Amino acid sequence: MNGAHALLETLMESGIEVCFANPGTSEMHLVTAIGKTDKVRPILCLFEGVVSGAADGYARISGKPAITLLHLGPGYANSMANLHNARRANSAIVNIVGDHAVWHHQHDAPLTSDVEAHVKIHSHWFKTTTSAEDLSLAGAEAVAASLSGPGKIATLVVPANHAWEASSKSFDRILPVPLDMVSDERLEITKRLLSNGKRTGLLLGGSALREQNLSYAGRIASATGATLLSETFPARLQRGEGRVPVNRVPYFAEQAIDFLDEYEQLILIGAPAPVAFFAYPGVKSTLYPDDCLIEEFASADDDVDHALERLSESFPNSGGCALQEYEVPDVVTQNLTPATIGAVVCRHMKEDSIVVDEAISSGLELYVQTLGAKKHDWLAVTGGSIGYGLPVALGAGIADPDRKIIALQADGSAMYTLQALWSMSREEIDVVVVLLNNSSYNILNVELLRTRSGEPNSKTLSMLDLSDPVIDWVKIAQAMKVEAYKVSEIGEFDDKFSLAMGKPGPCLIEVIMSQEIGQPIKR
Amino acid sequence: MNGAHALLETLMESGIEVCFANPGTSEMHLVTAIGKTDKVRPILCLFEGVVSGAADGYARISGKPAITLLHLGPGYANSMANLHNARRANSAIVNIVGDHAVWHHQHDAPLTSDVEAHVKIHSHWFKTTTSAEDLSLAGAEAVAASLSGPGKIATLVVPANHAWEASSKSFDRILPVPLDMVSDERLEITKRLLSNGKRTGLLLGGSALREQNLSYAGRIASATGATLLSETFPARLQRGEGRVPVNRVPYFAEQAIDFLDEYEQLILIGAPAPVAFFAYPGVKSTLYPDDCLIEEFASADDDVDHALERLSESFPNSGGCALQEYEVPDVVTQNLTPATIGAVVCRHMKEDSIVVDEAISSGLELYVQTLGAKKHDWLAVTGGSIGYGLPVALGAGIADPDRKIIALQADGSAMYTLQALWSMSREEIDVVVVLLNNSSYNILNVELLRTRSGEPNSKTLSMLDLSDPVIDWVKIAQAMKVEAYKVSEIGEFDDKFSLAMGKPGPCLIEVIMSQEIGQPIKR
Repeated sequence: MNGAHALLETLMESGIEVCFANPGTSEMHLVTAIGKTDKVRPILCLFEGVVSGAADGYARISGKPAITLLHLGPGYANSMANLHNARRANSAIVNIVGDHAVWHHQHDAPLTSDVEAHVKIHSHWFKTTTSAEDLSLAGAEAVAASLSGPGKIATLVVPANHAWEASSKSFDRILPVPLDMVSDERLEITKRLLSNGKRTGLLLGGSALREQNLSYAGRIASATGATLLSETFPARLQRGEGRVPVNRVPYFAEQAIDFLDEYEQLILIGAPAPVAFFAYPGVKSTLYPDDCLIEEFASADDDVDHALERLSESFPNSGGCALQEYEVPDVVTQNLTPATIGAVVCRHMKEDSIVVDEAISSGLELYVQTLGAKKHDWLAVTGGSIGYGLPVALGAGIADPDRKIIALQADGSAMYTLQALWSMSREEIDVVVVLLNNSSYNILNVELLRTRSGEPNSKTLSMLDLSDPVIDWVKIAQAMKVEAYKVSEIGEFDDKFSLAMGKPGPCLIEVIMSQEIGQPIKR
Repeated sequence: MNGAHALLETLMESGIEVCFANPGTSEMHLVTAIGKTDKVRPILCLFEGVVSGAADGYARISGKPAITLLHLGPGYANSMANLHNARRANSAIVNIVGDHAVWHHQHDAPLTSDVEAHVKIHSHWFKTTTSAEDLSLAGAEAVAASLSGPGKIATLVVPANHAWEASSKSFDRILPVPLDMVSDERLEITKRLLSNGKRTGLLLGGSALREQNLSYAGRIASATGATLLSETFPARLQRGEGRVPVNRVPYFAEQAIDFLDEYEQLILIGAPAPVAFFAYPGVKSTLYPDDCLIEEFASADDDVDHALERLSESFPNSGGCALQEYEVPDVVTQNLTPATIGAVVCRHMKEDSIVVDEAISSGLELYVQTLGAKKHDWLAVTGGSIGYGLPVALGAGIADPDRKIIALQADGSAMYTLQALWSMSREEIDVVVVLLNNSSYNILNVELLRTRSGEPNSKTLSMLDLSDPVIDWVKIAQAMKVEAYKVSEIGEFDDKFSLAMGKPGPCLIEVIMSQEIGQPIKR
């Protein structure tokens, strides 16, 4: 067999089932190998940012890595922005990057670049194979690396000749490095802090935001009077009816500083200490009070599930905290605002839906409106790199075709990776894209004020404006054979959203927002 | 004044007139500064790959750098694929990349990454400023670096606080490093080679392919019997009626090896030695005969104009070679094939049009069919990274609004950076996009065979297929308010192309190709 087949055999043995692909010439032997097996499903994506974002979404829902197929340095470069998000989401991904044949590098052909310089930026583990015989071991190592800890980015660079030269499948699955265990000492310290009578926040992130762990955390909070907080942009938060609710740390630094002002100590469980998304003149970067004690109970690399279970067992008499009740907000106006849209989404949410939130300036309110919806998963943009929403929705749909995907998607960020709509159509993903068209990089209008860079004039504002021309998202969706509707008042949205939730397959609803530019910032 | 204003003042003093922008929060002070001047035209692009590609197109036509405005590591990452092409085109570009405030880095906020690790991959020159006072000097240095040699990539990383802290404009224009002069010794060696009676090719690239230099080269060829050859993917080739014609080295390695087989010596003038685009099993990487002498007369970093002029003066009695005559091929079938489409493009070419060729598998034939068109510039994908065509067409149109732009664009590569259509609409670019829809990564069907990876089955072929669903490019164009037509036979294409060439503003013609999948390869 050749190296490509040996690699693929090992990857399959290691549990790989899905390949998000945008291949080129240097990956043709792998494409051929995938063609010859029934065990790996290839998902063609028409841009590499879709490939990496889909792999992120797949990992967040399945807990397993997909492989990506990327073409040399430029192909990998196009995947980097969403790999940045995936890394911050602790998603397991195995990138396979084809490179020139070893002897071809010296000739500096047009597509030659320093591939390792690219891949090391986001990869926790990377290797360039040194022979065809390397590929089997390297494939097993890559999968193991991706599954180490909470999930990692592993990248394998494969010179084209290694894919076509003779090789053998010689390695089976390699065991990943397990999560670290939280020490007894750390457990004792945390228990003492929880009983010292101080105003305490338990700041949850990563897997601490899954249903079972929230239940453990709820018992701890109930017994100790601590408050449950959530990181601002969780990779996957399980919320809604019947689950333990958490208070999300606000996005805007000024609001977050107010929000955290009451706490004398924060106990971190799978989340980093809360810091501002950006720095601003005159606003501090850390969001907690200067004299607030920050104590890490479990990091994202620790076995958070086990740690929380043990900590909760320290409070055997706790009944647990109140669970979220089913509650649908009223629609208070006919205008299409984040509040009314959120209320409608809440009303029609199906149990176990997966919500992918890239609604940006609308997202904060949509989150609030859907607190009391039927239980669902909420996925956020973990790394702040826009263009994550549609690809992650695609990957989530591949990971679990039995769950409804709801992509709450701002227009500006949708434009980055709109090619995902094509793969959604091709793969018949069960997704409703709620495309929030405010014809603006609206969040930047807000940020412009926050940076205090001076009174903006019309020329400055034009650089944040998407209304000339207004993008017709129904046409874009239809161009890729995704069923699409445009709505301009809330009743229409209710009709179309209800319709789309009730039938399978991809659908896009373009919502022409009534919202005024900018959002008030409470200080 | 603040750092952003100081930087902008210096950039303007250094000759910057255009900014291709996709800004974020960390660039708001620069956006505000640009808003306050009439001297810099901001072009908003809805994806960073459009930003960098447009800057490449602008530089190829104007010879000057534009600035780009990019947002942290992920924003820069999205620009990298087209920076790869720009670097290979020797285009002058000044990237301005905003980063977090200096003190904010330690907190590892979601958008934090190693920006320098990104920018050094493609930048000939880069600097991260160390204070607000740095910005003026750094701006002048960046422009000088971009204009050094034939054109370079210069990248300035600006921590956000340097943009808002106090600074002064203290530096004016800095002189770029001039091109190297070709030595008398090199001139003598080349003259001797040209008179040794061997079969000689003059392989021209870069600025050697401009009209005046082709004229010099024609005199040399006429006097010595050497043949004029062109690199396969020139940044800007001036061709057509009344110009000195060149023979392009074929793309496919097997054809190129045949093509170059006759030469005993190749003299390189602004071009590298010809090598295969990719390596293939059993095909060598160098395209010239093993015993062919390769002699570099002038590299891309040399003053090619001056060197060619001097060399041509060594042949005072040469009358120059025959100039290209005006010649329009017949349309031989009603089918929409690269040959018939090329013939129609040739027929309606306006003098001084700029053709941006990203037609990929159709491009080779389109090139041949338009040899005898009215004189025009032909821009090719220099680095092989697809998604270059629409952005470069945008940038070329900004550089010279008086010239018609013709973008010969394959469908698969168009999908990478289709957001460029929006900026074309907004800026009223005088461009005709000929969108060649064969619903396939057709070139990969060819490459699949060439890599000899085994008989492809339907699953393998599905990974190269764009027909499920077929993309409707008319709808995509209309979604961004670009006038659009779909044609399915050559008479219709003739009508619509003629119409589009005759009126200003952007227009897209979707050509439903009749061509069969794959193209024959002559071995």
